[in-house]
Amino acid sequence: MTFMTVDSRTVSQAGEDAMVAAICQIIDPHNAEHAGLLLGPGDDAAVLSCTSGQPVLTTDTLSADQDYRRTWWEGRPMEEWPRDLGTKAAAQNLSDLNAMGATPIALLVSLTLPPEFTVQWVQDFYAGVVRACSQPGAMGCAVAGGDLGSGADMSVTITAVGEPHQPGRLLRRSGARPGDILGVCGRLGYAAAGLALLEQAVASADRGAGLEVQGAAAGLLAECLEAQKRPQPPLTAGAAALRAGATAGMDLSDGLLRDAGRLARASEVKITLDEAALNAEARSLEPVAQHCEGAPYSAASDWVVSGGEDFGLLATFPSPAELPEGFRIIGHVAETAPGESAGAVLPGWTGAPGWDSMRG
Amino acid sequence: MTFMTVDSRTVSQAGEDAMVAAICQIIDPHNAEHAGLLLGPGDDAAVLSCTSGQPVLTTDTLSADQDYRRTWWEGRPMEEWPRDLGTKAAAQNLSDLNAMGATPIALLVSLTLPPEFTVQWVQDFYAGVVRACSQPGAMGCAVAGGDLGSGADMSVTITAVGEPHQPGRLLRRSGARPGDILGVCGRLGYAAAGLALLEQAVASADRGAGLEVQGAAAGLLAECLEAQKRPQPPLTAGAAALRAGATAGMDLSDGLLRDAGRLARASEVKITLDEAALNAEARSLEPVAQHCEGAPYSAASDWVVSGGEDFGLLATFPSPAELPEGFRIIGHVAETAPGESAGAVLPGWTGAPGWDSMRG
Repeated sequence: MTFMTVDSRTVSQAGEDAMVAAICQIIDPHNAEHAGLLLGPGDDAAVLSCTSGQPVLTTDTLSADQDYRRTWWEGRPMEEWPRDLGTKAAAQNLSDLNAMGATPIALLVSLTLPPEFTVQWVQDFYAGVVRACSQPGAMGCAVAGGDLGSGADMSVTITAVGEPHQPGRLLRRSGARPGDILGVCGRLGYAAAGLALLEQAVASADRGAGLEVQGAAAGLLAECLEAQKRPQPPLTAGAAALRAGATAGMDLSDGLLRDAGRLARASEVKITLDEAALNAEARSLEPVAQHCEGAPYSAASDWVVSGGEDFGLLATFPSPAELPEGFRIIGHVAETAPGESAGAVLPGWTGAPGWDSMRG
Repeated sequence: MTFMTVDSRTVSQAGEDAMVAAICQIIDPHNAEHAGLLLGPGDDAAVLSCTSGQPVLTTDTLSADQDYRRTWWEGRPMEEWPRDLGTKAAAQNLSDLNAMGATPIALLVSLTLPPEFTVQWVQDFYAGVVRACSQPGAMGCAVAGGDLGSGADMSVTITAVGEPHQPGRLLRRSGARPGDILGVCGRLGYAAAGLALLEQAVASADRGAGLEVQGAAAGLLAECLEAQKRPQPPLTAGAAALRAGATAGMDLSDGLLRDAGRLARASEVKITLDEAALNAEARSLEPVAQHCEGAPYSAASDWVVSGGEDFGLLATFPSPAELPEGFRIIGHVAETAPGESAGAVLPGWTGAPGWDSMRG
């Protein structure tokens, strides 16, 4: 048994070779059980085993102040900030693989840090990455290392590699057909509700005991904060959807209405979202809206319809179909009328369409 | 034929979906010829063909002010800065694959930009990435897209995916054996000399005509500046080294002495660099040192022995061996003496060991 001490050296004091060793302390025990990693950190590149011969790849960056604020973790235990960042950076990439119906093999991490960050911070960050790779649906995912560099601001880019269960069998955006039903797996609007709580300085809510809310709502608020800070995408849903005969799928990263529009355009169909179903989803977030000072009357609906970063899975299924566990029906697919463009609509909706990574 | 106009919209005016279309304008013609890209940009993830079943992966980040300065391109045509960055970000990753003896299949790009950057800038950047993938040794490499986001500072992370020519046959750091000879392919010290020229405000040298240097030296200075701003690693050298029976290899990113030390430790041997050979290499850079005001007497040797970012290939070969074209002998491998640690030495050297990405 090793007695763990906090390594408070800065990364610049430790230097590159010591940092690689410190990272390996965290990821080696995790990787030991992963047959997909043929060669891990320490050489010029990592080597994976991908028996299908069809690696599936995605990459995503988290930047300070764009994707999170340091102040969201004020008053929290020191290790929570880097762990949550590591988990979120990994989870958003694993979510993309899930949305293809692909099984994750490994992650590569490129971490840029101001030189005053500590070795302990980096180890906690990697512990967060390992945590994301210990969830159902990602347990076969190794952490293959990557790159570590200095910069004025912290930023992290993770690349996730997976493969189809069967070569050529993937969940694409372009397969939805008129008559299909639209299902979703995972919470809608929780991450946006968490963001609103964090941004509206209701950060004290995060401290649990300090929050004056009766039982049920306190749990709900904590769930929303978690959805924003350390999301847990439903990583078995993509494979389950494929098994159930799903025709198309994608993950929810920029809001339901915007993402459903993308799926509709890729499939050249019209998707109509179900107002009653989404109203029911919004009602479950009303207690959070009531805790956000100055939130508009429509806040809960806004979160459900256009809130980003839910990392749930949107998928279409032939009708009638038995949806896999965790999926619920939220719309249906039809042909576009003559002269009508492909896209998604929500009858009666006049709010924002969703998040745009270049516009905010 | 399309008449190309400058797209001066900012990325935030254009929005995410228009940016994806603008990027595809640049990369689609390049990708059309690449059978290794089964599914390109537009879905949740890219899908590659990797017939060996052993994808080789590496990732690397370029950050503003850490890896380059905007001022290096002052007075140069507008498109040169983004093109050079795209080329360099791609080249340093392709160099890692080369150092494994792997053939590149595809690159993934994650680009973070301040919102005032233009669509044209992004297209020029991708044109630079495509340029790097049009070099000998990388012509089979597609640009599989990636992620685009906003941030206070520009930063780019590229992930390169390749595969071995034969499954399991790779150039690792750990195979050097006592009795081997150490060879290098690619220029030594040119990138560091270019950095010195750029940093010491001899930037006017870059303007060609404005430089008062006689023929030969002007060409040499331009070559050093290019080595720093848009490196061209010898991307066929890895495969050639493997064919010639190389026992170990790695790319030169942090300086010859430091990197040779890493190879030596991975192989548990002692590497002695050849003073005479390195002196000859340094002599070729003397004309550059003479143009760097205030450069120490040892500048040219410093660049050759400890200058970073050369992206050449260091490899060990059984002796006697006929080295592949472009390689020259710069050292030899021996057993460590009893009590001696594995590592690299250069007799008589008292300068810096090399670049440390966390310390500078």
